[in-house]
Amino acid sequence: MLQWLREYRRAALPGDISAGIVVAMMMIPQGMAYALVAGLPPVVGIYASIFPPLLYALFGTSSTQSVGPMAIVSLMTASTLAPLATPGTGLHGVLAAQLALMSGLVLLACGLLRIGFLANFFSRPVMSGFTIGSAIVIAWGQLRTLVGGPIALDASPHWPSIALGFGSLALLVMAREWLAPLLRCLRVKPVVADIAAKLAPMFVVLGATALVPLLALDRMGVATTGAVPAGLPGLNLATSSGHWQALLQPALLIGFMVFLISMSGAQALALKRGGEKLVSNRELVGLGAANVGSALSGGFPVTGSISRSAVNFAAGANTQLASMITAGLLALALVAPTGWLALLPLPTLAATIIVAVLGMLDWSTLRTAWRYDRADALALLATAGGVLVLGVEAGVLVGVALSMGALIWRASRPHIAVLGRIHGTEHFRNVDRYSAETTPGLLMLRVDAGLFFGNVDAVNERIDEELVEHASTAHLVLVLSAVNAIDTSALFGLGELNASLRQRGVTLHLAEVKGPVMDRLRDSDLLGQLSGQVFLSAANAWDRLAGSSAAGRPQPAG
Amino acid sequence: MLQWLREYRRAALPGDISAGIVVAMMMIPQGMAYALVAGLPPVVGIYASIFPPLLYALFGTSSTQSVGPMAIVSLMTASTLAPLATPGTGLHGVLAAQLALMSGLVLLACGLLRIGFLANFFSRPVMSGFTIGSAIVIAWGQLRTLVGGPIALDASPHWPSIALGFGSLALLVMAREWLAPLLRCLRVKPVVADIAAKLAPMFVVLGATALVPLLALDRMGVATTGAVPAGLPGLNLATSSGHWQALLQPALLIGFMVFLISMSGAQALALKRGGEKLVSNRELVGLGAANVGSALSGGFPVTGSISRSAVNFAAGANTQLASMITAGLLALALVAPTGWLALLPLPTLAATIIVAVLGMLDWSTLRTAWRYDRADALALLATAGGVLVLGVEAGVLVGVALSMGALIWRASRPHIAVLGRIHGTEHFRNVDRYSAETTPGLLMLRVDAGLFFGNVDAVNERIDEELVEHASTAHLVLVLSAVNAIDTSALFGLGELNASLRQRGVTLHLAEVKGPVMDRLRDSDLLGQLSGQVFLSAANAWDRLAGSSAAGRPQPAG
Repeated sequence: MLQWLREYRRAALPGDISAGIVVAMMMIPQGMAYALVAGLPPVVGIYASIFPPLLYALFGTSSTQSVGPMAIVSLMTASTLAPLATPGTGLHGVLAAQLALMSGLVLLACGLLRIGFLANFFSRPVMSGFTIGSAIVIAWGQLRTLVGGPIALDASPHWPSIALGFGSLALLVMAREWLAPLLRCLRVKPVVADIAAKLAPMFVVLGATALVPLLALDRMGVATTGAVPAGLPGLNLATSSGHWQALLQPALLIGFMVFLISMSGAQALALKRGGEKLVSNRELVGLGAANVGSALSGGFPVTGSISRSAVNFAAGANTQLASMITAGLLALALVAPTGWLALLPLPTLAATIIVAVLGMLDWSTLRTAWRYDRADALALLATAGGVLVLGVEAGVLVGVALSMGALIWRASRPHIAVLGRIHGTEHFRNVDRYSAETTPGLLMLRVDAGLFFGNVDAVNERIDEELVEHASTAHLVLVLSAVNAIDTSALFGLGELNASLRQRGVTLHLAEVKGPVMDRLRDSDLLGQLSGQVFLSAANAWDRLAGSSAAGRPQPAG
Repeated sequence: MLQWLREYRRAALPGDISAGIVVAMMMIPQGMAYALVAGLPPVVGIYASIFPPLLYALFGTSSTQSVGPMAIVSLMTASTLAPLATPGTGLHGVLAAQLALMSGLVLLACGLLRIGFLANFFSRPVMSGFTIGSAIVIAWGQLRTLVGGPIALDASPHWPSIALGFGSLALLVMAREWLAPLLRCLRVKPVVADIAAKLAPMFVVLGATALVPLLALDRMGVATTGAVPAGLPGLNLATSSGHWQALLQPALLIGFMVFLISMSGAQALALKRGGEKLVSNRELVGLGAANVGSALSGGFPVTGSISRSAVNFAAGANTQLASMITAGLLALALVAPTGWLALLPLPTLAATIIVAVLGMLDWSTLRTAWRYDRADALALLATAGGVLVLGVEAGVLVGVALSMGALIWRASRPHIAVLGRIHGTEHFRNVDRYSAETTPGLLMLRVDAGLFFGNVDAVNERIDEELVEHASTAHLVLVLSAVNAIDTSALFGLGELNASLRQRGVTLHLAEVKGPVMDRLRDSDLLGQLSGQVFLSAANAWDRLAGSSAAGRPQPAG
């Protein structure tokens, strides 16, 4: 902990300061926008942007990760709280902080129990589908705020809100598409141009806020943030045990997604930096502390944001000091006069949200998966559909189920090759791919998968089919060169295969068992009960068994 | 369908008839006992023993499977219905049939969608733990019926019930332990002796029923079955949509367990028979039809019972005709005068349940797993604990989660070996296990696991660690001889590794890519973007790269 601070070199300071300022300027509109997504007053987004980056800097392992409000986690917060409290009420805010506290405790517990491996339950296509589904849900949810009224044919349009909302939207889209190229044409350095483009939301929000008193938009009925109390509120918890119970399962799901989202962003950055080492169990502790910190200051669940972290990195962040500077600047924003925040128009904030989440619609994963592995592409689409139809929480479970389902489905179709000898050599190959010789009475099968509960029945079934096709088999050799592991279920499966084959007069042999697998098998009864032998190589098995079987002469096959 | 009937040979008939009779004699007390476990009147167990074996014989694929009431499924039924209706009421019976109908429809749908691979979601240790936990819950639940009153220190004991219950228990245990050996000593054939022992519950129940009028036990307060209407009731469904909704999730879980329990029993028998082929999607249809049939006759969820199926097989069943004969005999039992059933004493029925489920406590899986793979043993114990603490339904989910958790946990610790060349050969081996030579600037790593979302981050992390240890590396060769598959997540992972290494001045090469894996990779952009080459063998890579790297001379290692 804080090793980076003890080793701090002054050369890192300018980069950390500039990154700290840039991220703070990005975080103010983003934090307020994502508080809106969570159904909370925008200022709560600033409450949730002070302690979290500070605590993550103390406990986390990524040096450039920017922890704070994030769109998907805000959506999950909104969907958790919807049945429990009305947005805008005191209870709603209390429950949001309580949810952050519980998610934080879940993350801390996982970190102390060292079960960070749980993040591996989501495949990337499923994560991509989850993100796409969530982005669409968030954008759709903000449309109402963007136009200042309900989305319906018979609703009378509120033109000032619509003009401000779509005007902001147009400016933000143009800034995203054209600002950086334009600045580069004007000979601005590419890094600076890119960062300026990322700060466009800040300037659009400031401009729109200035317009409100100038054009008296608030008196025309454009919704604004409203009065913001200075300073930080403290922790407030609901006393009803029903609320604690209702928040437990959502806290588990949100904790899981907080970790998953933060890790995938941090990993992408770590690969870019080269050699930075993330320790997943310490990441859990860092994110847990950040969420507890958010709760203590009246915030809501937070996580690492890949877009902000990328800006932090690009703006020169060298160490966690950058995040600490960001936190300090956000605290100052609350201590400074906050009157101007009251006039911030919500249609503009909605526009920043829509542009941000539409930027999360990344179709390249779908394109790649569609070409490379159709099942993964379908899992992606099904997860996105699950989020849209069943909601974001069920979407997480759909995603886990589909990741695991695809895994088990693939395992249930193991690849098993009939081996033959390449004439005159000691090499054995798949008779379907090579011209290799086999010998009657001897069947050699290579199982191309680790043996575990997910494929043990399918493997036994496939072996049975091969035995029906090769009815004269007296010796069956399983070549285990591609078997990296055998779990307890598969150990039983092999034992049953051995007993069943013995009854049918077929001897079972093993060959090319890997070192670690053999070490394990020595702790079991299988080797003692095996009707045949364990051969070091397929060639050894052939030499011994091809001679001893009834009709001994090799014949070509394949 | 019914292929077995078209091919029926008369030689199979004697075996089928004797098995049909024996199983019917076993099924009458068992069916009534498991109805009691489900909280239903004992006669419902006979309703559920007529259509199910008949329909399974028509649609299923195992020739000796005995489908009907089964302890664990009855426990799940009881636990589902407990919050919805009081045992003994009309609604309770209606909901039990409705649950069978819905579970049956779930199974039929799974069969038509051909998703039988779902049965692979449970590892064997977890299944064993689930069975142990359920057996303990069932036995505990019957203690009250066994002693004819509540289990409490201040409860006044009901001596007639206690005497009858424990007397039955003692007889049943003695029959199970000693009857078969005794009969064998008397020169009875071993098969016949074993079957006679299995029929002991029938004789104990008949004897106890005869005692009731003889000793006027019913007038002393010993609970009995009570009046049984002759004939079969029809299908009765609850009209409240709330009930349909409440039963949906339990129906999914029960359908899943019905399939899992039946398949594991059928597979064990198929292995014994040798060469019998089970088609999992047709098994789903057979079990689905059986449950729908149970519902139509006022029954409750049913499945294949491994203990009854084993008796069926041992008693000579050759085809599905045996099950049809069983079904016919049970139908006769209902048409015949059913007055005697009214006097059947419940303490004796409870005793048969306790003896039956204690027979399910198989500790050998735990013993084997404890020695072979501690994680599997812990998953077994945790699943048993989950059933005991959280209940049988949550236990199923705990089991799936633990199976998957153990899988992902193992995947998160991939085995990666640094390879070196065995001097003077073309063989490459793990430098930790063999004395093999390496060359500076060239690092060869063999990944011993298929690459998928569960291990892609862990693999990248391990590679990073090896690169830190071998800091002078200019060429990294991943030897993929043990990689049987690369999913979309791992494809992205390799792409990111390639980009990250390129930035650090390390060239990434692949070697010994398997045929099917290479076929897949050709559909992706990875090979085009790879900074290095794809080599056919590790030796090729060594020959090309050991020369080209900075400090070319081989040096011994390991």
